Amino acid sequence: MQPEMKAAVKLKPAPKSTEVKQVPMPEPTPDEVLIRVKIASICGTDVHIYDWDAWAQARIKTPLIQGHEFAGEVEKLGANVKGLKKGDYVSAEGHIACGRCYMCRTGNAHVCKTVSILGIDRGGSFAEYMTVPASNVIVNDDDLPLELATMQDPLGNAVYASMNANPPSKTIAIFGLGPIGLMAVALCKGMAARKVIAIGHRNTYRMDLAKKVGADIVLRSNETLVDAVMDATSGEGVDEVLEFSGNEQAVQQAIKIVRPAGGIHILGLYPKPLSLDVSEFVTKGLGMYGIHGRLMYRTWMQMGGLLKSGNVNLKPILTHRFKLDDYNEAMEVMRSGNCGKVAFPMEE
Amino acid sequence: MQPEMKAAVKLKPAPKSTEVKQVPMPEPTPDEVLIRVKIASICGTDVHIYDWDAWAQARIKTPLIQGHEFAGEVEKLGANVKGLKKGDYVSAEGHIACGRCYMCRTGNAHVCKTVSILGIDRGGSFAEYMTVPASNVIVNDDDLPLELATMQDPLGNAVYASMNANPPSKTIAIFGLGPIGLMAVALCKGMAARKVIAIGHRNTYRMDLAKKVGADIVLRSNETLVDAVMDATSGEGVDEVLEFSGNEQAVQQAIKIVRPAGGIHILGLYPKPLSLDVSEFVTKGLGMYGIHGRLMYRTWMQMGGLLKSGNVNLKPILTHRFKLDDYNEAMEVMRSGNCGKVAFPMEE
Amino acid sequence: MQPEMKAAVKLKPAPKSTEVKQVPMPEPTPDEVLIRVKIASICGTDVHIYDWDAWAQARIKTPLIQGHEFAGEVEKLGANVKGLKKGDYVSAEGHIACGRCYMCRTGNAHVCKTVSILGIDRGGSFAEYMTVPASNVIVNDDDLPLELATMQDPLGNAVYASMNANPPSKTIAIFGLGPIGLMAVALCKGMAARKVIAIGHRNTYRMDLAKKVGADIVLRSNETLVDAVMDATSGEGVDEVLEFSGNEQAVQQAIKIVRPAGGIHILGLYPKPLSLDVSEFVTKGLGMYGIHGRLMYRTWMQMGGLLKSGNVNLKPILTHRFKLDDYNEAMEVMRSGNCGKVAFPMEE
Amino acid sequence: MQPEMKAAVKLKPAPKSTEVKQVPMPEPTPDEVLIRVKIASICGTDVHIYDWDAWAQARIKTPLIQGHEFAGEVEKLGANVKGLKKGDYVSAEGHIACGRCYMCRTGNAHVCKTVSILGIDRGGSFAEYMTVPASNVIVNDDDLPLELATMQDPLGNAVYASMNANPPSKTIAIFGLGPIGLMAVALCKGMAARKVIAIGHRNTYRMDLAKKVGADIVLRSNETLVDAVMDATSGEGVDEVLEFSGNEQAVQQAIKIVRPAGGIHILGLYPKPLSLDVSEFVTKGLGMYGIHGRLMYRTWMQMGGLLKSGNVNLKPILTHRFKLDDYNEAMEVMRSGNCGKVAFPMEE
Repeated sequence: MQPEMKAAVKLKPAPKSTEVKQVPMPEPTPDEVLIRVKIASICGTDVHIYDWDAWAQARIKTPLIQGHEFAGEVEKLGANVKGLKKGDYVSAEGHIACGRCYMCRTGNAHVCKTVSILGIDRGGSFAEYMTVPASNVIVNDDDLPLELATMQDPLGNAVYASMNANPPSKTIAIFGLGPIGLMAVALCKGMAARKVIAIGHRNTYRMDLAKKVGADIVLRSNETLVDAVMDATSGEGVDEVLEFSGNEQAVQQAIKIVRPAGGIHILGLYPKPLSLDVSEFVTKGLGMYGIHGRLMYRTWMQMGGLLKSGNVNLKPILTHRFKLDDYNEAMEVMRSGNCGKVAFPMEE
Repeated sequence: MQPEMKAAVKLKPAPKSTEVKQVPMPEPTPDEVLIRVKIASICGTDVHIYDWDAWAQARIKTPLIQGHEFAGEVEKLGANVKGLKKGDYVSAEGHIACGRCYMCRTGNAHVCKTVSILGIDRGGSFAEYMTVPASNVIVNDDDLPLELATMQDPLGNAVYASMNANPPSKTIAIFGLGPIGLMAVALCKGMAARKVIAIGHRNTYRMDLAKKVGADIVLRSNETLVDAVMDATSGEGVDEVLEFSGNEQAVQQAIKIVRPAGGIHILGLYPKPLSLDVSEFVTKGLGMYGIHGRLMYRTWMQMGGLLKSGNVNLKPILTHRFKLDDYNEAMEVMRSGNCGKVAFPMEE
Repeated sequence: MQPEMKAAVKLKPAPKSTEVKQVPMPEPTPDEVLIRVKIASICGTDVHIYDWDAWAQARIKTPLIQGHEFAGEVEKLGANVKGLKKGDYVSAEGHIACGRCYMCRTGNAHVCKTVSILGIDRGGSFAEYMTVPASNVIVNDDDLPLELATMQDPLGNAVYASMNANPPSKTIAIFGLGPIGLMAVALCKGMAARKVIAIGHRNTYRMDLAKKVGADIVLRSNETLVDAVMDATSGEGVDEVLEFSGNEQAVQQAIKIVRPAGGIHILGLYPKPLSLDVSEFVTKGLGMYGIHGRLMYRTWMQMGGLLKSGNVNLKPILTHRFKLDDYNEAMEVMRSGNCGKVAFPMEE
Repeated sequence: MQPEMKAAVKLKPAPKSTEVKQVPMPEPTPDEVLIRVKIASICGTDVHIYDWDAWAQARIKTPLIQGHEFAGEVEKLGANVKGLKKGDYVSAEGHIACGRCYMCRTGNAHVCKTVSILGIDRGGSFAEYMTVPASNVIVNDDDLPLELATMQDPLGNAVYASMNANPPSKTIAIFGLGPIGLMAVALCKGMAARKVIAIGHRNTYRMDLAKKVGADIVLRSNETLVDAVMDATSGEGVDEVLEFSGNEQAVQQAIKIVRPAGGIHILGLYPKPLSLDVSEFVTKGLGMYGIHGRLMYRTWMQMGGLLKSGNVNLKPILTHRFKLDDYNEAMEVMRSGNCGKVAFPMEE
């Protein structure tokens, strides 16, 4: 008889239709591993699926076990798998790339044309067990706490965006103080940015968290923001902007607050086209960079080193823990916004 | 008595108010040189001033001798000038940077905060003589033809944009087939681009010129352009886009025709904000780069080497020559668009 | 009964012990393809194995079918192979990397710690058929001539070295005029280097070939070389040096002839440690780069574009063709040095 | 009557021939400023001059006021000087570049062909006043302590070397624990290096200092060093090596302990050519970089930001303070090696 496991299963193409129940445990193919999940955490994308918004309706097939943020242990190896062993303490890159397209072959697998994603296009980590292609598995340092290990997927976004801005010695403005923005604050400070200006909107809970993880200045995004940033930089503007908010105004303001020859690094997505002053962008000689996913696997290697450095204050960002049985309650906390990262530790 | 010279002088803050007449010859300050102009050429900016458009009205003080494209000979050296001598065959960077601001001190003098420009903020090259700060003077190779030497200011724009795209081996789309766009076509082909796709609009004269200087494919910018480019690239898209057209549609199409992880290099300026699909930009992991002026003086050094290489077919781009006395006639040719670069050789 | 094929088999651990004979045709594993070889060519490494020098004695197990340069057609696909089909016109990267080590995961598979190589550690291309892991197969452009397609392995070395030097607009000195050095001459000229100075030693056949593929100047390596290069560069020195000769003196001279802040790109290997003036290297602010293999697979993608550009004059480099039956004769031509690349077309 | 000042003057071309005495105060030329020195510090180069070694005998003209490390206040401005004012709190780049050569015009003024140096080729900072070209003056942040401000010349060397290695997330080995090596330890840790391995020789005073400023591991350079580093890096080797020791063995060991595709950044100078295994360098795909001076002025701008970040623990490196009157005593401490940086505060 096939073994079973507990999982949170989105049952129907409708909002909130998730039930925690027993389901068959998946079996790894020859190139996959089976992982026993020890902790999983919730991404904003999971809330979109939970809410069954337009994007989810277009992309997701139910039933689905969501979740792509996790840490766990290798439980079983597919026949062809090399370089891993039972008991390895692992996390995984959630984007499964084709390996053969032009992008995959030139170091850009993060924008592979035919990617599939854990917990979105196939079963994910909100379960006691999951399967992952061996190519995507990352062995964690033994002393990396589970609470940090589970955050590595979004932390990877923040690492990629931050590293793209080359933070040491620079003044950096960060728009958007969700978990990824907060991680970027901690990362830039940890890499010796001259000054980190964190820019929130209405959520004071997260603006307080930004201060806690190292922001030198926390500002509110409004019509006086450009002046406030110029004041805070002796009229010079910032060297780099990281944009995680998904607000049109943030990108418009970014062009104004960045110094000539500076850079704007955008991970945010926007519901509609943005109106941008490209002439100002050009005459200032700026650069703008789309940050998608994480570099495979350069970003993961960098992340391991940054976590090990001891310079990056990430712990305050994981603010809530729930049992998987309390899945719906956890989702509601995410929806409230009064949280950092929310996790499901799977064991007592 | 002060010596005189012939010059085309914009006399009044009004359209077409230029007269070719005798004026006092300028005298170099201790850090400047006096140059005898042997050839000068007309920039699109000169037409804006000639037409006295909104930009010109806001920026230009008359009377003014326009012109920032030229080649000539050093006639006289200011007292402090070192490293140049009478008779040197020279051209000059037109942007005079402050030398002390953050940008100037970090290799970004091209976006200096307090730049002044030859022929715009001070007297220029549509005259028999002109003065230029010694710092801005470039000594040309002896065997560089005057017709190419005078084009170095706009060629520098094209070199900077092209080099930013690192053309060897790449498929490159070039929007806008004015002189700078045509130069970029010749440059990218000369640097072993895989394929250059030149994109014009209505001007068949310039689309023919694009073919002449090496474009592999010449397309017309319209609603089928994206499909045409995808067809021409086996559905992969281009590696890089250079945008010189100043049309909103070009930037919108650039985001669609460039492959994931590709680059968009923009020199164009736009009369109003552009509506851009930044989400597509982000999920494709693109880069966008504002190209302003020329790197001082890295671009000039690169330009010297590219001109010397023998690989770049620029001669067809200079299509018309006029005597300085026929200044107004030359301006009308520029306004017609049925031309490449238009020059004033000063001597028979 | 297992099908057979003709192959040149090194039979014994001794010099010249190769025989052209019938052997069993190899069978692809699930992740491999079987390729019908249409042309193969000889690498210097093949001569080392043929001669059974110290390196070969330490590395090679006989019997062995040598050869890692080739072009052919996919004949049969392993069960797991995707993205290729029977009849595809292909070549292959000869270095088979592990895919899991730090280097492989960060874009540096060319220096993978546990690489195995076609024709060295497993059977190669001096045969009618060969097997190659699908990951390593490159689909050639349909219109790429067989004579160029077979040269892509060494051409990849030359492309990697040349691209590392970023040749457009630069003055470049190239030491060593074997096939790879000659290819670099053609590549740098094709990418609009300002001036290419090719430096040979005694072999006038190859110095003539250097001229033929585009060298601006061909010099002989001797005690007056440094002066000759400084004369040819107005005392400035070259921007970059590519070193393919494997001679100690070349690296010593490279440090002298390169301008401050220039680069030295070394593919050569040396029988013993070199005596280098590192203080001069440091005070000139130079960079030195070890070029090993080809970037996997960025270099291959770049190579495809450069071949397609039409700018690179490589055809003169393939100077000799032999039937596979005349294997020993071909090896003797290689040993004479009076040749460029030597190939075995497999069909009439 | 010309005003006078106190200065330490090397009087004769012989060892230890320095006397602290009253001399005429220098007068700034139109492009210079006069600076009142508030603190100066001793560079290793100053000891070479003090000792009158072979290098000093060849380069130095006496009488000379040595010293190029300092902080002070602008006292008087030359007639042409813009962008500075009396009372500005300043330090200065000691290398005075020509501004016109190829290197100066392409962002490489640090390797200008005709540089002259403060305190070496003209009077320096071991005096109450000194003149400096305005171009070389750096305005310090108001809250930068004098003790750190005076260290910026050698700190700039360390910043340039460290930034060249891009330390965030990396494992970095640092050879040579003089002041610059110690600064590099603090910098790399401050920029979130994964692990910093500091490598000293015999001087336990400095090995203790390395621990104090953040080294994760301190090793002694000897025949077991390579094994010790490989052990400390799970057999992977380090990502980057910074070499400040000037010992041949350090560079030889660097090639062994760095991982494939890693980098070796050398500021050390060596009394004779080094014997290096360039074949290993090539097959590992390494890069080697000569670090000379500081990038003008990118490094200074970066340094300002790093000092302001609060992440870099530099204070322990300034270990000794002397009155200028006790010049010879200070030099003897430098010669003992039982010190970090030694400074002359000019005021009580």
